[in-house]
Amino acid sequence: MATRKIAILAEGALGWHAAKTAVGVIRYAPDTTVAVIDSTHTGMDVAEALQGPVGEGIPVVRDITEALTYQPDTLLIGIAPRGGALPESWRWQLLAAIEHGLNIVSGLHAFVSDDEELRTAAARKGVTIWDVRRPPARTRVADFTPHREGSHTVLLVGSDCGSGKMSTALDLNAEAQRRGLSSAFIATGQTGMMIANNGLPVDRLIIDFAAGLVEEQVLNFSHAHDWVFVEGQGALNHPGYSPVTLSLLHGSMPDALIFCHKAGQTAIDGYEQCLFPSLNRLIEINEEAVNWLRPERRSKVVGISLITNHLDEPHAREAVEQMMNETGLPVTDPLRFGVAPLMDALERHFAG
Amino acid sequence: MATRKIAILAEGALGWHAAKTAVGVIRYAPDTTVAVIDSTHTGMDVAEALQGPVGEGIPVVRDITEALTYQPDTLLIGIAPRGGALPESWRWQLLAAIEHGLNIVSGLHAFVSDDEELRTAAARKGVTIWDVRRPPARTRVADFTPHREGSHTVLLVGSDCGSGKMSTALDLNAEAQRRGLSSAFIATGQTGMMIANNGLPVDRLIIDFAAGLVEEQVLNFSHAHDWVFVEGQGALNHPGYSPVTLSLLHGSMPDALIFCHKAGQTAIDGYEQCLFPSLNRLIEINEEAVNWLRPERRSKVVGISLITNHLDEPHAREAVEQMMNETGLPVTDPLRFGVAPLMDALERHFAG
Repeated sequence: MATRKIAILAEGALGWHAAKTAVGVIRYAPDTTVAVIDSTHTGMDVAEALQGPVGEGIPVVRDITEALTYQPDTLLIGIAPRGGALPESWRWQLLAAIEHGLNIVSGLHAFVSDDEELRTAAARKGVTIWDVRRPPARTRVADFTPHREGSHTVLLVGSDCGSGKMSTALDLNAEAQRRGLSSAFIATGQTGMMIANNGLPVDRLIIDFAAGLVEEQVLNFSHAHDWVFVEGQGALNHPGYSPVTLSLLHGSMPDALIFCHKAGQTAIDGYEQCLFPSLNRLIEINEEAVNWLRPERRSKVVGISLITNHLDEPHAREAVEQMMNETGLPVTDPLRFGVAPLMDALERHFAG
Repeated sequence: MATRKIAILAEGALGWHAAKTAVGVIRYAPDTTVAVIDSTHTGMDVAEALQGPVGEGIPVVRDITEALTYQPDTLLIGIAPRGGALPESWRWQLLAAIEHGLNIVSGLHAFVSDDEELRTAAARKGVTIWDVRRPPARTRVADFTPHREGSHTVLLVGSDCGSGKMSTALDLNAEAQRRGLSSAFIATGQTGMMIANNGLPVDRLIIDFAAGLVEEQVLNFSHAHDWVFVEGQGALNHPGYSPVTLSLLHGSMPDALIFCHKAGQTAIDGYEQCLFPSLNRLIEINEEAVNWLRPERRSKVVGISLITNHLDEPHAREAVEQMMNETGLPVTDPLRFGVAPLMDALERHFAG
């Protein structure tokens, strides 16, 4: 697959958190990001704008006109403003991008391809508009088909949203490929989809078909690859999003799980009354949920990915150590200490 | 609330299974069913057509013209033909119904109110079209608000679809009202909605908002009623529909559960490789799923509703007995032996 040359529209959003999609695409996509549009941070590179270690040498530019001088072939709208609609101040930039033959990838709640003017312009120029959040129209109920013998499906689960499931899955996929293994990543959320250029917006699916559409993806990928890393979403102990998590557990029927957690977190973000059970119990409930359907071949959590970027190095090491003692499992912060210990654990698990 | 006088369109469908909606509405709705349209069974009453104990004295008629002589105020489309669209042979009947001032309640996959001709006709006559399967447009993420102190929310769960969750919830609600309790039923599927004239088509919701929209219903109902019986859907051990079940467990946060099962069934219908765990384990996983969110106040299964209509009387009694021994819980087939033992168990549970 040819890689893209991407300009990312992230107007006013170049702060570390708000720029999650831009950071993800720059860090993980096989494509080249040639420029990031944010008129509030011009005159520096992305790393300077973010005050972080991602995006060195990628210019922050004022608008699409300046971005076009870097010859992108794709404009990726990497933020979703409140209200969800396309800000009118962006319209001319999208039109200019289309006019210059760029494909559009949009994470907006309002679908760009539903906009008459933009759709007409894209059709005239022969460029594509991909609204990442648009759920597939087709329906499919899971039929519990076994995966190809010899393939390994690994699902990322965690104690909450934002616990590192996407990035750990991407890190594991990259590490597996580095080891010469046949490996793929399945995106299940919009940032992952923009990175991988495929996948399903699982949180937008009709609930009856969520597991079935996930299963279909996993069957396709595990047919073609020996290792399949499925991006997780939400958490079984999340009051709002637990059905999304279960649709991934039962749709992907993972052979192994990696559990993700932010060091020190004790309750669901935004729900302080929802205290976590013990980590061992959290691990156990994710294993059990898979095994409700397949008790004879137990699925297990084989390692833990720990977010420690809010801790200094000694405290990060201490947190990793403490988690290893508590769970008896390999633990790492992939961003800080590398993902190899988790890939080692997975290889051991399937060799053993 | 004024009760409706309903004509049910069930063309070609008056067999016991296909007529699930018609049977449910006749048995459970507070409304009067004045006629059932099925041109293949004219000249008898519904009970004769069904060869069952429901619908004695309700005439089966040829078409809407004949149905109108029984002065209905509502036409309820109680079957969903394959393909989902409105059969063209029904169009004139819907138009005739609208022309005579009947409101339309439709369970078709294709929404009647999206049909230009029918919508226009309804607007002109001032009648309503309720497409029961149409999900609400609004979005809501569950916020884990506690229910009113003193209210009792009871969710029906089971080993599979079609295990008696809707009818047992309706029976319990009727029994509670008979006992003078303040009680309500929340419908979560289309037949239940047609019966109760309210509710949510949970299986059609966007997965991110399913628990939140269920929670909203339960908060409203438990504010107004001491007992709230929530219709269940699917099963946690169902490969396709488990997310629907979990959205109900976490959206309703039940204070108690009633478990439903068809005597002798050992695997998910249509998935013979999905063998049930033991019934005690099935009961336990439903309890545990609630308690993931609220470990300090355990939710328990307090009784079992058993379908025995495929057994003769001695075998039915034997099945009930055996299930009581296996689980240590009160067991009844509400249709055959009455629902009182389950309501007794619930009253004891909350008194204790």
